[in-house]
Amino acid sequence: MARIVMKFGGTSMAGIERIRHVAGLVKREAERGNQVAVVVSAMAGETDRLIQFCREAASLYDPREYDVVVASGEQVTSGLLAITLQGMGTNARSYMGWQLPIRASGHAAALIEGIDAAVLEGVFAQGGIAVIPGFQGVTADGDVATLGRGGSDTSAVALAAAMKADRCDIYTDVDGVYTTDPRIVPRARKLSTVTYEEMLELASVGAKVLQTRSVGLAMRTNMPLQVLSSFEDRPGTMIVGDEALEDNDMERNVITGIAYDKNEARVTLTGIPDRPGVVAAVFGPLAEANINVDMIVQNIPRPGEASDLTFTVPTASLAHAAAELEQIRGEIGFTEILTDTNVVKVSAVGVGMRSNAGIAATMFRTLADRGINIVAITTSEIKVSVLIPEEYTELAVRVLHTAYGLDAEDAA
Amino acid sequence: MARIVMKFGGTSMAGIERIRHVAGLVKREAERGNQVAVVVSAMAGETDRLIQFCREAASLYDPREYDVVVASGEQVTSGLLAITLQGMGTNARSYMGWQLPIRASGHAAALIEGIDAAVLEGVFAQGGIAVIPGFQGVTADGDVATLGRGGSDTSAVALAAAMKADRCDIYTDVDGVYTTDPRIVPRARKLSTVTYEEMLELASVGAKVLQTRSVGLAMRTNMPLQVLSSFEDRPGTMIVGDEALEDNDMERNVITGIAYDKNEARVTLTGIPDRPGVVAAVFGPLAEANINVDMIVQNIPRPGEASDLTFTVPTASLAHAAAELEQIRGEIGFTEILTDTNVVKVSAVGVGMRSNAGIAATMFRTLADRGINIVAITTSEIKVSVLIPEEYTELAVRVLHTAYGLDAEDAA
Repeated sequence: MARIVMKFGGTSMAGIERIRHVAGLVKREAERGNQVAVVVSAMAGETDRLIQFCREAASLYDPREYDVVVASGEQVTSGLLAITLQGMGTNARSYMGWQLPIRASGHAAALIEGIDAAVLEGVFAQGGIAVIPGFQGVTADGDVATLGRGGSDTSAVALAAAMKADRCDIYTDVDGVYTTDPRIVPRARKLSTVTYEEMLELASVGAKVLQTRSVGLAMRTNMPLQVLSSFEDRPGTMIVGDEALEDNDMERNVITGIAYDKNEARVTLTGIPDRPGVVAAVFGPLAEANINVDMIVQNIPRPGEASDLTFTVPTASLAHAAAELEQIRGEIGFTEILTDTNVVKVSAVGVGMRSNAGIAATMFRTLADRGINIVAITTSEIKVSVLIPEEYTELAVRVLHTAYGLDAEDAA
Repeated sequence: MARIVMKFGGTSMAGIERIRHVAGLVKREAERGNQVAVVVSAMAGETDRLIQFCREAASLYDPREYDVVVASGEQVTSGLLAITLQGMGTNARSYMGWQLPIRASGHAAALIEGIDAAVLEGVFAQGGIAVIPGFQGVTADGDVATLGRGGSDTSAVALAAAMKADRCDIYTDVDGVYTTDPRIVPRARKLSTVTYEEMLELASVGAKVLQTRSVGLAMRTNMPLQVLSSFEDRPGTMIVGDEALEDNDMERNVITGIAYDKNEARVTLTGIPDRPGVVAAVFGPLAEANINVDMIVQNIPRPGEASDLTFTVPTASLAHAAAELEQIRGEIGFTEILTDTNVVKVSAVGVGMRSNAGIAATMFRTLADRGINIVAITTSEIKVSVLIPEEYTELAVRVLHTAYGLDAEDAA
């Protein structure tokens, strides 16, 4: 017997037919003798519809009232799944965030502070199934709070931790985490396991399977996650801690996956004077404006000469960043602001990198062999990322996938 | 300064543009110095959509979970109205049924047990506007409960009583209560006042402006109601107790209005034996089957001879009633079950009837003059109803409207 949280996203809950299919999966898990709590998203499109209502109602809407409106989508799917499960002869009940309760602080992007699992223990003791709306909680003032977009993944992991679950299964419309985007590399392989840290790097560079926040929470609480498809009946990808990699995982690749992210834009400031504190003077105002700077490259100038400073910001923040920089042009004394949105960040990710030299060298050589120019580089303990012209995205991902030995022996 | 509950139905809340219009009405009432609580319905069509989901999810759905699902419609409109009111510079906030709380018992057709007005007193003390979802409450177990279709009117009246409001204004898509259906009688007049009892009779015989239950609650708590249009800026109809009829109301008509109801079907059992207890043997099983019998006519037979028994049931219950009767045919010993759905009940209603003789006589003579055959008659203290062939509906309503002096002097 295991204790399991099953989480179903909006695509899996879109309409009664799909909810019935989800109920079948839940019932099967319960019939295996497992204790099951289910976390559900709103029907696909519903949250967007509700947010649109709020935006139309007032340009600056009260986050407290916004939460009242948007939390309703998961309320509906929770009740409908409970009804469907009951119709299949199981002992299921829904528990809203304020009923459990799921304690949260803040509004619109609230943080989960704690979950009281006492109610759930009672449900399990009676052989019941609990259905819980994702994305929502209740504040200390007794107000409805929502966790921000994608928050249902976080709800599921927090619930799993609170009820000391053996596993948190995230059912979605993909069947797992792949070595890279299968649309680009047909020989991409589904990974059987990936570590939390790898998943965080893969997610933050573009593989949007799970909300980053939920992976961080799973890592902190050491909760095993499984990403799997609600539409196909086969195992997904397990996301676990380094220490949980099994013996045969010793044979796993040094590199786990290749990710890419087109949502970065390059900014270059030319003619930056060689003066102490000038870099801080550039990045301070950007940080204050909540603009997330990622890769940074500064030419080392000859003493007394001007240099260039290159960095990346999210494409959505580029106009904002340029405006902020224009305001400090006089103070800094740079010559020009050059921007380029036709860039892509390509990353090789893998915990095996820690004990293996030459990972970055392989990347640079592989790209150089194809004549791909590298604009900027960043590395972390388990990741090497390069910024390259966007037109090379597919070529770069494909050749790196091969170079790191990730290609499946037979295309699926 | 007055304390007012304003209630808006689904048509008034259907979409952001209409919610904005409602917010304007609420703001104006607050700016007059009044303390205002607003009760809202779900957007028109939303509750039907949610009920349809429940029906598709399982043929026998759990009322507890049904309530979780359908209560969401009012949750959405409450939040959206609060956002819109805030956007107009007012100090508005929403309070769900479980937050106020609105205590209720039962599910799907729950009864309001009480409303705690302490939170509202605090809101009013700070010059705030409370927005409250209609149709919902919370049970002693902390579960969401809904009041049944049209329950938002009852929510509004119960809230008005709890907060000792001066008035409960029910905004709807008609501008008041009319002497009869203006589609049949263009010279129908809007009534400035009508008593609770008259409204109950008018509602129960077909003038579906207010939920009957809400009028009964207003009568018991002596809460003045006003029915008015949210789309037209003019006074509606006040619904008050007899004692609140003003002096000039002494001049009001003996008859307040003419109503009709096509949702009745006639049942005649022929050849009923003249035996004690036979009528009870017919109506007992129907009552147990929750079939509402309205008009009853029994021919007085000569001693020892068989007679006919005629009565009406709601058309929707006719098949059910016939099946029940078929089961007891042997026991009772009647000859035939004859049914007729092509009948209409036409009623003249008015508190002035109490002190005026000849009301029924006027009705019978007026109908007889047009050759309209009366199938059955019932009377109460303030109502005379006749069952006639449905094809005479418009003619009967029109001639009775004229006969009782209800026609407007000039058509509106």
